[in-house]
Amino acid sequence: MLVIGENISVTATAIGDAVKERNAKPIVDLAKAQADAGANYIDVNIGPATKNGEDLMQWIVKSIQAEVDRPLALDTKNMSAIEAGLQVHKGKAMINSVTGDQDKLDILMPMAKKYDAKIVGIALTDKGVPPDVDSRLEIAMTIVSSAMEHGLPMEDLYLDPIVLPVAVLQEQVHNCIKALKVFKQLQELMGLDSQPMTTVGLSNVSQSSPVELKSLLNRTMLLVLLSNGLDSAIVDPLDKELMAAVKTFDIVNNKILYAHSYLD
Amino acid sequence: MLVIGENISVTATAIGDAVKERNAKPIVDLAKAQADAGANYIDVNIGPATKNGEDLMQWIVKSIQAEVDRPLALDTKNMSAIEAGLQVHKGKAMINSVTGDQDKLDILMPMAKKYDAKIVGIALTDKGVPPDVDSRLEIAMTIVSSAMEHGLPMEDLYLDPIVLPVAVLQEQVHNCIKALKVFKQLQELMGLDSQPMTTVGLSNVSQSSPVELKSLLNRTMLLVLLSNGLDSAIVDPLDKELMAAVKTFDIVNNKILYAHSYLD
Repeated sequence: MLVIGENISVTATAIGDAVKERNAKPIVDLAKAQADAGANYIDVNIGPATKNGEDLMQWIVKSIQAEVDRPLALDTKNMSAIEAGLQVHKGKAMINSVTGDQDKLDILMPMAKKYDAKIVGIALTDKGVPPDVDSRLEIAMTIVSSAMEHGLPMEDLYLDPIVLPVAVLQEQVHNCIKALKVFKQLQELMGLDSQPMTTVGLSNVSQSSPVELKSLLNRTMLLVLLSNGLDSAIVDPLDKELMAAVKTFDIVNNKILYAHSYLD
Repeated sequence: MLVIGENISVTATAIGDAVKERNAKPIVDLAKAQADAGANYIDVNIGPATKNGEDLMQWIVKSIQAEVDRPLALDTKNMSAIEAGLQVHKGKAMINSVTGDQDKLDILMPMAKKYDAKIVGIALTDKGVPPDVDSRLEIAMTIVSSAMEHGLPMEDLYLDPIVLPVAVLQEQVHNCIKALKVFKQLQELMGLDSQPMTTVGLSNVSQSSPVELKSLLNRTMLLVLLSNGLDSAIVDPLDKELMAAVKTFDIVNNKILYAHSYLD
C-alpha cells in the first residue's frame, strides 16, 4: 500500500500557526516523523490558500524537501498554488485532489501530465458527494476519460471512492466499500489497457466518533478496503496500530516475508 | 459472523485436568464466559478420546448445557463419541469436523442429517493438507457432493479452507484466503441451489508466533477473511480486541447500527 501521511494540515493548530509565522521547523519535523513511520508521500494541506497561496506552497515544498527525502501530495483547492508547488517540487509529486467537475479536470489533468505528477481523482463534484454507488462510478469514469484524453497513465491516477464518517452517514461507509469494488473493475468496464489506482482519505471514517474508537474504526475500515484491492490511503502514519495492521495485512497476503520481528 | 468459541479443549491443562477428574465447574465457567463474550457456539474438543469417549462427551455436553444456553460444536476424531454427544445435545449441534475422506463422510454426513446438526467440512484428507488451492477446492467439492447425497442443506455445511501458521507456512496462509474466495463461488461452480457456509480455525494462523503478535495476527487474518465473505470462525471470544474488530467490521459494513457505545 502506498502510504500518504495526512498530518501536515493547516487545520491542525500547530501547523496553522507555523504556516502563519513561516516557521518551517514544526512542519519539517512532522514530515520527518511521518517518513520515519513509513509514509511514502507526505500530504501538505494548506487549506483554501486564497491569499499568497503560490508563495506559501513553494515555501512549504522547499522547506520540507530540503530536509526530508519524500515526494509530497499538494493539497489545496487553489489550483495555481498547486502549479507553483509543482514547479519547485523534486521527484514525482501528487496532486490531491481533482473532483469530477469538467472545468477542474481541464486544468489539473494537463497539469499532472506536464509536471509528471500523480493525481487523486475524487468521486464527487461541486454539487457534493453522490449518495449512491452508480453516481460515484459515473464520476470516476469521467475522471478516467479526462486522464486518457490528456495522456495521463492509469498508474498515476488514484481514484477515491470517498470515505464519510460512520457516526453520521453509516450507510455511506458501506457504499464506499461497494464503490471501491466497482472501481477495481474499471479496466474491464471501460476496456482500459491497465487498471487505475485507488486511494481514500481514511480518517474521515472516524470523524465525529469518540477518540477511543478512532484508531479501531480507521484500521478496521482500512483492512476491509485493502482486502478489496485498495492501493493507497491517506492516513496518520504515526498511528502505530494502524501501521501494524497494514504490515500484518502484507504478511498474511505473503507480500512481505514473515519474521517474528516483522513489526520492529 | 457465527462465533464458535474455541477455549474448551483438553489440550489446555486446566480443561485436561477437569476432564480427568470429571470436575465440571472449570468447563462450565469457561463455556459461560465465552457465551457472555459473544460466542454463538461453544466448541468442545475432547481430543482423540479413544477410551470412554462416548461417556465423556455425554457428560461434558450435559454439564455445559445444564448451565449455559448455547449449542455446542462437538470436536473429536472419535465418531461414536460424536454420536453419543448428539444423542443428549439440546438444540442444533455442530460436528467439528469431517475431512474429505469418503469413509468418514459416509458416516458423519448421515449422522448430521439424522440429528439435524451443522457440520464443518475441512479441506484436507488423511493424506494431509494439500498445498495448492485447486486440491482444496476438489476436496470441498467432494464434501459438498456428500452433503447433497445425504440431504444435508447447504446452510448447515461449513467449509473450512484451512488456516496454517504464518510463522511456518506463510504461503499457505495466502492460499487459505485464495481458497476461501473460490469456496464462495461453489454455488455457481457446482450449480447449487444455495451457497454452502464457510468457517476457519482462526488461531492456527498465529501458532508458533510470539505471544505479543498472536492477537494482531488473528484479528487481521479474520478481517481479511470476513472481507472475502467468511461466514463463521472458531476463535477465542475472550480476546476483546478480536471481538471489537468483528463488531467494527459489522459497523463499517452497515450490518449493525452505529452508536458511540457500540463496543459496550
